[in-house]
Amino acid sequence: MRIQIVNPNTTVSMTEKIAVAAKAVAAPGTEIVAATSKSGPASIEGHFDGAMAVPGLLAEIARGEREGVDAHVIACFDDTGLDAARSLARAPVIGIGEAAFHLGTIVSERFTVVTTLSCSVPILQSNLFRYGFDRRCARVRAAEVPVLSLEEEGSPARQRIADEIAAALAEDHCDAIVLGCAGMADLCAFYAEKFGIPVIEGVSAAVKLAEGTVALGLGTSKSGGWAPPIAKRYDGLAARFLEE
Amino acid sequence: MRIQIVNPNTTVSMTEKIAVAAKAVAAPGTEIVAATSKSGPASIEGHFDGAMAVPGLLAEIARGEREGVDAHVIACFDDTGLDAARSLARAPVIGIGEAAFHLGTIVSERFTVVTTLSCSVPILQSNLFRYGFDRRCARVRAAEVPVLSLEEEGSPARQRIADEIAAALAEDHCDAIVLGCAGMADLCAFYAEKFGIPVIEGVSAAVKLAEGTVALGLGTSKSGGWAPPIAKRYDGLAARFLEE
Amino acid sequence: MRIQIVNPNTTVSMTEKIAVAAKAVAAPGTEIVAATSKSGPASIEGHFDGAMAVPGLLAEIARGEREGVDAHVIACFDDTGLDAARSLARAPVIGIGEAAFHLGTIVSERFTVVTTLSCSVPILQSNLFRYGFDRRCARVRAAEVPVLSLEEEGSPARQRIADEIAAALAEDHCDAIVLGCAGMADLCAFYAEKFGIPVIEGVSAAVKLAEGTVALGLGTSKSGGWAPPIAKRYDGLAARFLEE
Amino acid sequence: MRIQIVNPNTTVSMTEKIAVAAKAVAAPGTEIVAATSKSGPASIEGHFDGAMAVPGLLAEIARGEREGVDAHVIACFDDTGLDAARSLARAPVIGIGEAAFHLGTIVSERFTVVTTLSCSVPILQSNLFRYGFDRRCARVRAAEVPVLSLEEEGSPARQRIADEIAAALAEDHCDAIVLGCAGMADLCAFYAEKFGIPVIEGVSAAVKLAEGTVALGLGTSKSGGWAPPIAKRYDGLAARFLEE
Amino acid sequence: MRIQIVNPNTTVSMTEKIAVAAKAVAAPGTEIVAATSKSGPASIEGHFDGAMAVPGLLAEIARGEREGVDAHVIACFDDTGLDAARSLARAPVIGIGEAAFHLGTIVSERFTVVTTLSCSVPILQSNLFRYGFDRRCARVRAAEVPVLSLEEEGSPARQRIADEIAAALAEDHCDAIVLGCAGMADLCAFYAEKFGIPVIEGVSAAVKLAEGTVALGLGTSKSGGWAPPIAKRYDGLAARFLEE
Amino acid sequence: MRIQIVNPNTTVSMTEKIAVAAKAVAAPGTEIVAATSKSGPASIEGHFDGAMAVPGLLAEIARGEREGVDAHVIACFDDTGLDAARSLARAPVIGIGEAAFHLGTIVSERFTVVTTLSCSVPILQSNLFRYGFDRRCARVRAAEVPVLSLEEEGSPARQRIADEIAAALAEDHCDAIVLGCAGMADLCAFYAEKFGIPVIEGVSAAVKLAEGTVALGLGTSKSGGWAPPIAKRYDGLAARFLEE
Repeated sequence: MRIQIVNPNTTVSMTEKIAVAAKAVAAPGTEIVAATSKSGPASIEGHFDGAMAVPGLLAEIARGEREGVDAHVIACFDDTGLDAARSLARAPVIGIGEAAFHLGTIVSERFTVVTTLSCSVPILQSNLFRYGFDRRCARVRAAEVPVLSLEEEGSPARQRIADEIAAALAEDHCDAIVLGCAGMADLCAFYAEKFGIPVIEGVSAAVKLAEGTVALGLGTSKSGGWAPPIAKRYDGLAARFLEE
Repeated sequence: MRIQIVNPNTTVSMTEKIAVAAKAVAAPGTEIVAATSKSGPASIEGHFDGAMAVPGLLAEIARGEREGVDAHVIACFDDTGLDAARSLARAPVIGIGEAAFHLGTIVSERFTVVTTLSCSVPILQSNLFRYGFDRRCARVRAAEVPVLSLEEEGSPARQRIADEIAAALAEDHCDAIVLGCAGMADLCAFYAEKFGIPVIEGVSAAVKLAEGTVALGLGTSKSGGWAPPIAKRYDGLAARFLEE
Repeated sequence: MRIQIVNPNTTVSMTEKIAVAAKAVAAPGTEIVAATSKSGPASIEGHFDGAMAVPGLLAEIARGEREGVDAHVIACFDDTGLDAARSLARAPVIGIGEAAFHLGTIVSERFTVVTTLSCSVPILQSNLFRYGFDRRCARVRAAEVPVLSLEEEGSPARQRIADEIAAALAEDHCDAIVLGCAGMADLCAFYAEKFGIPVIEGVSAAVKLAEGTVALGLGTSKSGGWAPPIAKRYDGLAARFLEE
Repeated sequence: MRIQIVNPNTTVSMTEKIAVAAKAVAAPGTEIVAATSKSGPASIEGHFDGAMAVPGLLAEIARGEREGVDAHVIACFDDTGLDAARSLARAPVIGIGEAAFHLGTIVSERFTVVTTLSCSVPILQSNLFRYGFDRRCARVRAAEVPVLSLEEEGSPARQRIADEIAAALAEDHCDAIVLGCAGMADLCAFYAEKFGIPVIEGVSAAVKLAEGTVALGLGTSKSGGWAPPIAKRYDGLAARFLEE
Repeated sequence: MRIQIVNPNTTVSMTEKIAVAAKAVAAPGTEIVAATSKSGPASIEGHFDGAMAVPGLLAEIARGEREGVDAHVIACFDDTGLDAARSLARAPVIGIGEAAFHLGTIVSERFTVVTTLSCSVPILQSNLFRYGFDRRCARVRAAEVPVLSLEEEGSPARQRIADEIAAALAEDHCDAIVLGCAGMADLCAFYAEKFGIPVIEGVSAAVKLAEGTVALGLGTSKSGGWAPPIAKRYDGLAARFLEE
Repeated sequence: MRIQIVNPNTTVSMTEKIAVAAKAVAAPGTEIVAATSKSGPASIEGHFDGAMAVPGLLAEIARGEREGVDAHVIACFDDTGLDAARSLARAPVIGIGEAAFHLGTIVSERFTVVTTLSCSVPILQSNLFRYGFDRRCARVRAAEVPVLSLEEEGSPARQRIADEIAAALAEDHCDAIVLGCAGMADLCAFYAEKFGIPVIEGVSAAVKLAEGTVALGLGTSKSGGWAPPIAKRYDGLAARFLEE
């Protein structure tokens, strides 16, 4: 099967890291197709970046549908554009945030999320509440590291995240950690070993959920809230997206 | 004071109807500036339309900020792009959906929402839940009239909505009706008189909330979840939006 | 339009301060009529005071209805007697607590309430929960200043409230402050300037919500939970209230 | 021990019926003292009646405290004035509504409440929600019988309530019935036998809860939300209540 | 009336202490029958112990039913096996955890639970949430004393619990304490006197609730979620339980 | 990897059907080990059956742990004994009910559960609430077919379930169906094709979630609510379970 992973920001090095993480956990028969959005911010930090990233993301979802991929993964921990992508797709669509939360509830009684910047905290809290996972999340913490610092050699980001995990284990009554950014996809094993508890990362979680959903022959239901868009006139730059 | 009302779809006749409704309730010193999005769908019906409308909406919010408007109203009942717009603005930003819900809780113990199409029902239910108003809403009903049919002379839409209101009063144990579409802005008084209960419409509700918020000197808090976007590189069509 | 503001305690100096705050934000065509309850406690601190204040409050609501006021504001942050007042009135009735919460959710992602005494904290928490605003409130804090100390020259109350606001900003992850007592109506601008965040005060918030509701022709729905009282025999002092 | 049952309306025949129901279930050592409020409505139907009944109720609570009763029961199913009464009392205070709900969750998985008039439905729904029992209540139904019709010989009230119970069993997926009015205290056994399911009535439930609470030496905590009223000046008729 | 109290662990000294506590509060006409489970762990600490204790508990419930007891009390604060016991019984069944929570909400605005080990904390939190009492519980604390240390002379357990109560009163904004283990049944009066607030203990609370429920003629509803087990083949050791 | 699927009832034909369903979706490298409980009821219908099945289930979990399986699946839709099993295991443990709900939220906006008997409905509703999925479930329906009738040739069960699915699609505003019994594992494809919507079945869903969790190196966290049982004395038949 082919699973398309869309990085909804435009930073190619981040897509590459995501692809590595995805391929590392993909089953033998799974082909990972990693796509970088062609329109949007270099990183998604806060509501504005997220909203501006969606049309570029949806263009990749549409392309994937046309090319017949079996599932889509949205590789932003905010699950940016998830409902709109589901409206567009017949294949299943999985956000890396929700994927990590699903697995977090399976292996831990209460998990803490460690994300990048505090501007993402209310977005993740709102998602947890909407998904029904808020009672299973001890706390959402920000390590105060910019997303793109995770791409830099020698950045103190890795240490700051470790410090935040240590604080979570000391203060939050949590028994697992969820890493709250696609850019942390390569750090999962490191922290799991260091702290001796389950550490869940969204890209790999979403790949496994996607494989499972496809293997069961399940796709996005088209008869409810994710029914296909109604054909209509589009204007301006938005029309340009639809052409591409 | 100047209140900008942004119609986040591209249908100018709908903007005009919205502007009439807004001006009809504006206080003497209030100037209503109605803007039509230059990019997006002709109407917003479902998640995909909503997501694609946001960049065009945000461009108008940004323009309004530069021009120094005192408040913004987002004239789609889904409150499309509300969090992103608040990140962008220092002036207060009010969605017509939330505005109607706020006033609905003031004048009724339980209200029913009557919207256009059933694809909007889960979006409004999710908003009600996130805002904390779900317990005050008896039900969200769809009259199954397309948004743009409200723009057509002689359309049966007006009657279908009346039928749905009648059904709500008979079945839902509600004591007020909230009209769930910006395109119904001109129908409020008609139904209120016909049914003898409070009928709340979002455009007029948002104008009054905006006037009140501005009069108190309140603006969008910039120190929490709606902090300004972090400056960064934007690519592709998204960069074009930022230029405009 | 005429808006009646009822101070449900019997302290006239507090009514005067409330009237000043109300008139300061009233629109040109709005006449503010401030009434002091003739029966009840000198201040409302806790459940007993609140319950005992209600008949005196309702007498003023009834008088206002007879005199044809266009809206009522209940100037106690506990929203004392709100449901009973709505049962009595055809004009809209707005509590200053709920009014502040409504605007708080529009301009901030999460607000902290700073009230007077800790006996009011569970009352406000219960209101926030019933209204559905509990998720938007970071915390309810008491500055431990008696209500009437706010009426005294040279009282340390103003400083204690400032200290509590500072503590809220440091500890609560909130991005706005709601002042939780009608007696703080004159302090709003002072703290807003001092701390550089939105500070919301209920009297002014309620006046603007009342103006907006009236301008839209909306009144309290009489067909649901706030239907008019059923005519019946009243005995004892309660009968005296009805005579007056 | 002595348990005071306060009928917060002024209808003596109803107090007598309540006293009979209370004495019928009281343990050998329990003395039931039934008091009728001297001030308020002849029956409590809706928010206004409830609010106006509270001072008269509190006067009886205060008298009971002075006379050293061991517990208080508030014999209105709306639990009118419960928090204020608890502020006033050191002895435990139990509302007949909450008492019936407590026992309802012990003997049934989901109960339906059958009350008198529909104006009481939102009050009971709000109580169930605040108490945390809403998930255990299948539905709150009104038989549409005025409270005082329960006092009339030959009234159709008894049959209407039976019809409503039958409807509940057929439609609500409930496995017990809670009778939602103090005036139904004499009907409990009749319906229990007729329908063969647990039927819970508040007066008797509250007596048993009061006996149990007193036997354990428990009283209302005075260190939290129900701390004693702060001494202060009272004016007008409210001051008259305090004198009596 | 006869009330059977089942200690679902196999430690007889604990049953004896429970029986003493139960008899100390039982009404004159109440006979307390204390039973010790014949199968299961010596103490219940965590999910595994709880699950393994249930068949032994149910055997005692079944025996009690055959012998015609009037009510059953499950003397483990986790309310182990409560739903299954209710399925088996026509008499009412009351867990000591739920009993303490019921009374806790009657005498306090917010209580803190002090239990033995932290492995019980999520179990109690889950129960509080399912019962609807989570909003009334300030916090669940563990004193980190093993259950059976409460049976040892000269154990530091009594002091550790006192320390935890003191911490709760200082930090939790609670106004009562619920003791979260059947093994603490003899400590209730000691702490109540020491700290001057209501201290609620489950065994005595359950006895009084059981007496009250029986006195009202109420039993477990058999028409809903607690309908009797459907007769069927049982295999293995489980079949042995049914024989006994 | 080896995944153990434990049928917690003692009906071998049902284990065989479950094994077929599991193997049909297992990935190439996955070995399915199906175990039948040696102690308990022939089918699990209601709380009593569920509770009595748990020790037999836990014995199989313990055996699987000793034999080094990589994951456990509990093949009862009630998720019987899930927390206790997680306390016992280091490998991940997944209930087929929760597994179906997880995937249900990924492919549908709102799903309806169709289970066997109405005695299971409150159990599943309680699970949905505890897991946080209640808002995504439109309704839990019972087809009123006994579990073991699903094992009989020519039983009308298949048709009754189809009728219930048809009713759900007509009445519930759902866009997917979750089959609520392990015994329905072979019917999934049939209904999916017949009704043209996603039909989710728990055994296959749990296998794919187990494969995914194992592939990521995740196991049950042992530092929180699912810490290993504390070693202690066990008595009676329970001790026999531990020996086996």
